[in-house]
Amino acid sequence: MTTNTPTAGAPATSLQDIIGHAKEYGFVFPSSEIYDGLQAVYDYGQNGVELKNNLKTLWWKAMTQLNDNVVGIDAAIFMHPLTWKASGHVDSFNDPMIDNRDSKKRYRADQLLEGKAEEYTANGQPEKGQELLHEMGRLLDAGDLNGVRELIISEGIKDPISGTDNWTEVRQFNLMFSTQVGSVAEDASLIYLRPETAQGIFVNFLNVQKTGRMKVPFGIAQIGKAFRNEIVARQFTFRMREFEQMEMQFFVRPGTEMEWYERWRDTRMRFHQAVGLPTEKLKFHIHEKLAHYANAAVDIEYQFPFGFREIEGIHSRTDFDLKSHQELSRKKQQYFDNDVDPATGKPYGNYIPYVVETSVGADRLFLAVFCNAYTEEVVGEGEDQKTRTYLKLHPALAPIKAAVFPLVRKDGLPDKAEQIVKSLRSEFRVVYEERDAIGKRYTRQDLIGTPFCIAVDYQTLEDDTVTIRHRDTTQQERVHINELKARIGHDVSMERILEKL
Amino acid sequence: MTTNTPTAGAPATSLQDIIGHAKEYGFVFPSSEIYDGLQAVYDYGQNGVELKNNLKTLWWKAMTQLNDNVVGIDAAIFMHPLTWKASGHVDSFNDPMIDNRDSKKRYRADQLLEGKAEEYTANGQPEKGQELLHEMGRLLDAGDLNGVRELIISEGIKDPISGTDNWTEVRQFNLMFSTQVGSVAEDASLIYLRPETAQGIFVNFLNVQKTGRMKVPFGIAQIGKAFRNEIVARQFTFRMREFEQMEMQFFVRPGTEMEWYERWRDTRMRFHQAVGLPTEKLKFHIHEKLAHYANAAVDIEYQFPFGFREIEGIHSRTDFDLKSHQELSRKKQQYFDNDVDPATGKPYGNYIPYVVETSVGADRLFLAVFCNAYTEEVVGEGEDQKTRTYLKLHPALAPIKAAVFPLVRKDGLPDKAEQIVKSLRSEFRVVYEERDAIGKRYTRQDLIGTPFCIAVDYQTLEDDTVTIRHRDTTQQERVHINELKARIGHDVSMERILEKL
Repeated sequence: MTTNTPTAGAPATSLQDIIGHAKEYGFVFPSSEIYDGLQAVYDYGQNGVELKNNLKTLWWKAMTQLNDNVVGIDAAIFMHPLTWKASGHVDSFNDPMIDNRDSKKRYRADQLLEGKAEEYTANGQPEKGQELLHEMGRLLDAGDLNGVRELIISEGIKDPISGTDNWTEVRQFNLMFSTQVGSVAEDASLIYLRPETAQGIFVNFLNVQKTGRMKVPFGIAQIGKAFRNEIVARQFTFRMREFEQMEMQFFVRPGTEMEWYERWRDTRMRFHQAVGLPTEKLKFHIHEKLAHYANAAVDIEYQFPFGFREIEGIHSRTDFDLKSHQELSRKKQQYFDNDVDPATGKPYGNYIPYVVETSVGADRLFLAVFCNAYTEEVVGEGEDQKTRTYLKLHPALAPIKAAVFPLVRKDGLPDKAEQIVKSLRSEFRVVYEERDAIGKRYTRQDLIGTPFCIAVDYQTLEDDTVTIRHRDTTQQERVHINELKARIGHDVSMERILEKL
Repeated sequence: MTTNTPTAGAPATSLQDIIGHAKEYGFVFPSSEIYDGLQAVYDYGQNGVELKNNLKTLWWKAMTQLNDNVVGIDAAIFMHPLTWKASGHVDSFNDPMIDNRDSKKRYRADQLLEGKAEEYTANGQPEKGQELLHEMGRLLDAGDLNGVRELIISEGIKDPISGTDNWTEVRQFNLMFSTQVGSVAEDASLIYLRPETAQGIFVNFLNVQKTGRMKVPFGIAQIGKAFRNEIVARQFTFRMREFEQMEMQFFVRPGTEMEWYERWRDTRMRFHQAVGLPTEKLKFHIHEKLAHYANAAVDIEYQFPFGFREIEGIHSRTDFDLKSHQELSRKKQQYFDNDVDPATGKPYGNYIPYVVETSVGADRLFLAVFCNAYTEEVVGEGEDQKTRTYLKLHPALAPIKAAVFPLVRKDGLPDKAEQIVKSLRSEFRVVYEERDAIGKRYTRQDLIGTPFCIAVDYQTLEDDTVTIRHRDTTQQERVHINELKARIGHDVSMERILEKL
């Protein structure tokens, strides 16, 4: 049930409905589709790119405009390879993989065991499932890959295709994409496509702090692509090999990180509510098992058609990253804090700041907003009953803000409509449409989430008034042409969302 | 001379001045600098990212908002490898490289010969230089790499390091970065990082045309990263291994392409003038030698400190790309044109559209705007004479729109200033600054191009007026607090630029 206003008779929305609508109305296309696509890679179409850009712009403004102490950067995807040594990605950004010799298929060893644990739980033996997961965690933490293989065999796990347990050894498979930079001669070197944008912020910490004269606490925000060679990519744009992150690293004095962690956790939840995701479809999921660099972590999850899943993580990353970079680069990653410590009466002095990270998957936020906007409503009675489908997007996020229609294609109505388009389009995105009956034109705009349709009719030629038809209510009202820019401009402006944050 | 208003006494600006200013004031940092950088890769700092984003947003709006028949997309960097077979990049996106066996250094063979030709010209033998270039072109076109090597030797070209002509054979070196997608098993496949964004548009041509019900002529615009393994990268952000393009492919009826080519050429020139690049520093450079896919091509060049160089290319690409994709994918890339051909009285019918491309280097446009804004003015007389440096950026492009200063840090002035910041910051980017004397604060904002500084003084507490100090003139005026949003908002709005386009 992803409809905003579930109506008797409207069916529950499936991921297939979403994928179909996204493709048919120019939101998301499979990548390189004419060559039968590229697995787990997608392209944003003419409406998708606008919705996604609007979300990115809103996040950027919420971070860098609303906070005095947050600035942005845009670091390159290519980084010095030592960056990924320091971050731990070279050594431990791995998935344990196992092959079945008969089917020649490859699986993630941990997912095979997780599947078995779920089976136990489903069969009324949840303790046995828990025990299995615990044992798996112990083996993986200890790096005992042979033990993982033996566990798979002793649990009787078989390849669903071949039906055999003729398993190879378990091997670690690094998820980073690599490429050669430089010419093929001896000076070529291996570099990685960044698996996260965060490190681009960490290596620039001192550059930004010094050139921007930033005082701790302060944050650095960034939007950019990251790449992971996911073996099992799935759920549409939820898990892709190429994806976009919107991250902010907030640098704080050690000991104050929990206060900031809580503050950002709540601030970020408000953001997701402000873009229109309903409170009952959002929840926090606190991490019990923490990554090696974290001392607290929580996800904000949204209820997708396939269940509650992470759209943003808020992590207290301690000084792990800056310290690692300091060790490897031999460049001090310290900040001198002039503020006076009340306990000693002296300045806090030099320290490596702690970091609170907020990390949104831009493609996941897009998918959440898109799923949430997708609305099917049963309208009419008896034989006239039908399902109306529309995208209930916040006007500030909609790809097109207004569509202008001449009632008919004659008597000067098209010219009048085009004049209106011209008068509005330096302010916001507005289109002209004259094809088909006006009801069909309304429907087309509903399907892509256009909040306002402006109809030009014969009365317009007399008194310069038009009708504005509202997407969600389908109600119409008559307004003067001169009011259009201010009326629509107010509703579609991002400032209205920002004011509430 | 890159100052806008060259003043007697102000020195000519060098690229080194630009690089220094960009780094010191948070516009551009060397990538991964703590690891001594990564050649030909740069990161945008806290001010650079805002300027670059503003340029990208302006271009996007100019394309997709001002034109009814242009829409955007955002295709992934990863594409199906056949894409690059169709485009010709797999087979011919090469540089001819030659190694010197003694120095072990590698060179571009064509650049060695071009250097020799320049030498002839400098020594009063321009005809001989022309002849050499002509012969080189003939050999390269014929794929005669051995001939190129013999030409290098017969011209007596020596390695500047070893001083010898102990050259290896000439080999073609493909400039695309490649990586493996999928796991290390037999199903892994080689893919490329896109060397241009254009192909992401071509493979989506029919998806956009059909789902957006687009009628030829129409355009598809895209902003995104592209990657080229440049052997000799140089001139700061002008030629990078990772760079960003702003491209638009405009699909037209065959036979009308020259008309559209000329129209877009002029439209695009107006854009560069509208962002503030002076007419005398912009020129067209018509290509005499055309790429295999083009039937007309022109560059828009800007006068950088290192000479006139391309910032945008406008190319008439014929139906080369769509035709290649049709052949390789076996999917028809045709459009059915309902319009009536006056010559036959029948619809034009099915055809593969011709394409006019406009392609801006986003990083180059950034660099041009940055160089152009960098201004040194000699002010004052006699002993008070000094050089004032500021960035004369269009207010709509400036990273920060306004800075608010309390005259002193007491008597409630900071609170009053912070209130003003809060009242403005949902509309545009505004900062608060209380450190140092007010003159120093003005200087700091000048150096990053902030158009307006707002000072809060004792009179503000009495009558709610503040001074606005204008960056370019350093003139001050007194205005009421209630007027600030409208006054500054008007000047910093992108709509003012769009209205003129």
